[in-house]
Amino acid sequence: MPDGDSRPTLKHVAARAGVSLISASRVMRGAPNVSEALRAKVEAAAADLGYSRNRIAGSLRSQASDLIAVIVPSMSNHVFPPIVDGIDTALRGSRFRPVLGMTGYETSMEETILRDLLSWTPAAVILSGLEHSPGTRALLRRHDGPVIELLDTDAPPIDLSVGVSQAAAGRMMAAHLIDRGYSRIGFVGAWGGRDTRATKRQDALARAVAAAGLAPLAQHIADAPSSLCVGADALRALRRAHPELDAVVFANDDLALGALFACQSDGIAVPDTLALAGFNGLDMCQVITPRLTTIQTPRFEIGQQAGTLLRDRLSGKDTPPPAPLPLHLVAGETT
Amino acid sequence: MPDGDSRPTLKHVAARAGVSLISASRVMRGAPNVSEALRAKVEAAAADLGYSRNRIAGSLRSQASDLIAVIVPSMSNHVFPPIVDGIDTALRGSRFRPVLGMTGYETSMEETILRDLLSWTPAAVILSGLEHSPGTRALLRRHDGPVIELLDTDAPPIDLSVGVSQAAAGRMMAAHLIDRGYSRIGFVGAWGGRDTRATKRQDALARAVAAAGLAPLAQHIADAPSSLCVGADALRALRRAHPELDAVVFANDDLALGALFACQSDGIAVPDTLALAGFNGLDMCQVITPRLTTIQTPRFEIGQQAGTLLRDRLSGKDTPPPAPLPLHLVAGETT
Repeated sequence: MPDGDSRPTLKHVAARAGVSLISASRVMRGAPNVSEALRAKVEAAAADLGYSRNRIAGSLRSQASDLIAVIVPSMSNHVFPPIVDGIDTALRGSRFRPVLGMTGYETSMEETILRDLLSWTPAAVILSGLEHSPGTRALLRRHDGPVIELLDTDAPPIDLSVGVSQAAAGRMMAAHLIDRGYSRIGFVGAWGGRDTRATKRQDALARAVAAAGLAPLAQHIADAPSSLCVGADALRALRRAHPELDAVVFANDDLALGALFACQSDGIAVPDTLALAGFNGLDMCQVITPRLTTIQTPRFEIGQQAGTLLRDRLSGKDTPPPAPLPLHLVAGETT
Repeated sequence: MPDGDSRPTLKHVAARAGVSLISASRVMRGAPNVSEALRAKVEAAAADLGYSRNRIAGSLRSQASDLIAVIVPSMSNHVFPPIVDGIDTALRGSRFRPVLGMTGYETSMEETILRDLLSWTPAAVILSGLEHSPGTRALLRRHDGPVIELLDTDAPPIDLSVGVSQAAAGRMMAAHLIDRGYSRIGFVGAWGGRDTRATKRQDALARAVAAAGLAPLAQHIADAPSSLCVGADALRALRRAHPELDAVVFANDDLALGALFACQSDGIAVPDTLALAGFNGLDMCQVITPRLTTIQTPRFEIGQQAGTLLRDRLSGKDTPPPAPLPLHLVAGETT
């Protein structure tokens, strides 16, 4: 038993469990080939004593810590919570833990947060997208461990990328709308255009629309975080400037759902007067009436694949870089 | 300039910026009273060189690290992403960073994750709710720093709590339904009843219903994570067992929205045949038709208040424990 209020040490744990110090150490650092009986004894003793090991000290000895730096734009964008869930699920049972930073889609904030997180000597870095400031790129080149860029596979990554082709998503939606006979197409985005993945989809959509000989893609990019209300307001603004539009594609489902509710309030028939389409495939799209046409993105899988890839690489397995994950167009009742 | 590929040190940064080592150090560790000109010079040099400091070493010297352990049940519950956003916002510009773990509403998983996160010697711990395993409690009592329990203020916290009264929320919804003349009330939950905050609301609702002399609260608790589809299925199951119900309260808005869409599909008039009410006040509630009656919870504010409280406490300010945050009943068109 530890004296008075002093912090219990591994020695106390070993004594209470009635095992050697080396056995207690093997259990607490998660070494392989430990018997279940030994593990149970040592963990019970650790729980009784309120013991936890100091991994900061271990990290200092080993140069790299067991932290994984995870940098995402915002938790209020529905894309990122399931990605973080997927990363956490893949890291469960390993020695790695995610340490988190959010950028609000500001590349300068990304650099500040990355510099801060690198001070924890993380074993690996996960960040969003392929566009970064020169300072961020310099820091990542110096980083001695895997770097995974999430969500976008349309250009060579610094090290590894896990995600989908954003350009393919833009072309996929263009093909769907053109196939259904729409010819005056618009696009609504948010975040002041700082969501570069949305901009890539928009650009691919614009090129496909032009290639089909249709009127140039009309657009309205709101200078605000994405939300239902921003989608409603942005659609109204776009229609004031372009009353001729017969279909509008949104940067994500939140914006599209907000616009759909606005059409229902304003008496605009969807899809007869105006077709609407989103991006992401949130659950909500399939349970509302009318069901929203969207592109299903594998968000949880992106996080899980990134976490699994890191575990492989950090345990010395030379897992090959993964292929882009598949996208699915979900044709609902709004196109 | 560093030689070849070796990691740049603070000395290299100071030399490149043309400042003293002590000045460079003051900027890099975020010391107060540093001039903007000095900060800009040193940060530019650090960016050019790809320098980042090693905080693991600093943490070892100071006993506690600058990590804040944040343990939440799940990012797929819409409650938690805005809380994490709020914590991150409050910690921005400080030396503290959130390191994250998720429990899936399993108290044994909470203990495992807490033990793991404590090995990083975090400066503080933020976790969800007031119910924990004996092992978790033992670890938290040993922890030398603030502990904040989020979301529930209905019992004394281990150290500090930030949140709302769950019992008051249950009573608030009971008063609303009884006031509108509903008398055969049911409750739908999820997560196999492991969401103890939802259970507290349910218990308070049941007591208020009994106190008003109404039929006992009927219930259906789905053994699955909360989702729109689970809400739809659970409502159908509850109505099969209790066709007499005239109002159903849901553990959260996701479940209630799923049930609302199910009623629209099944031709059940809301609220004339059946009234529905949720909990949380998601944006979606106010833009759908009919608008969902719900209780607005201050989720971002809970995270932000927790982060601010930690910054205060860790900088030696003796900020008093905060009062429970206010709840607002939002009367929509479904009751």
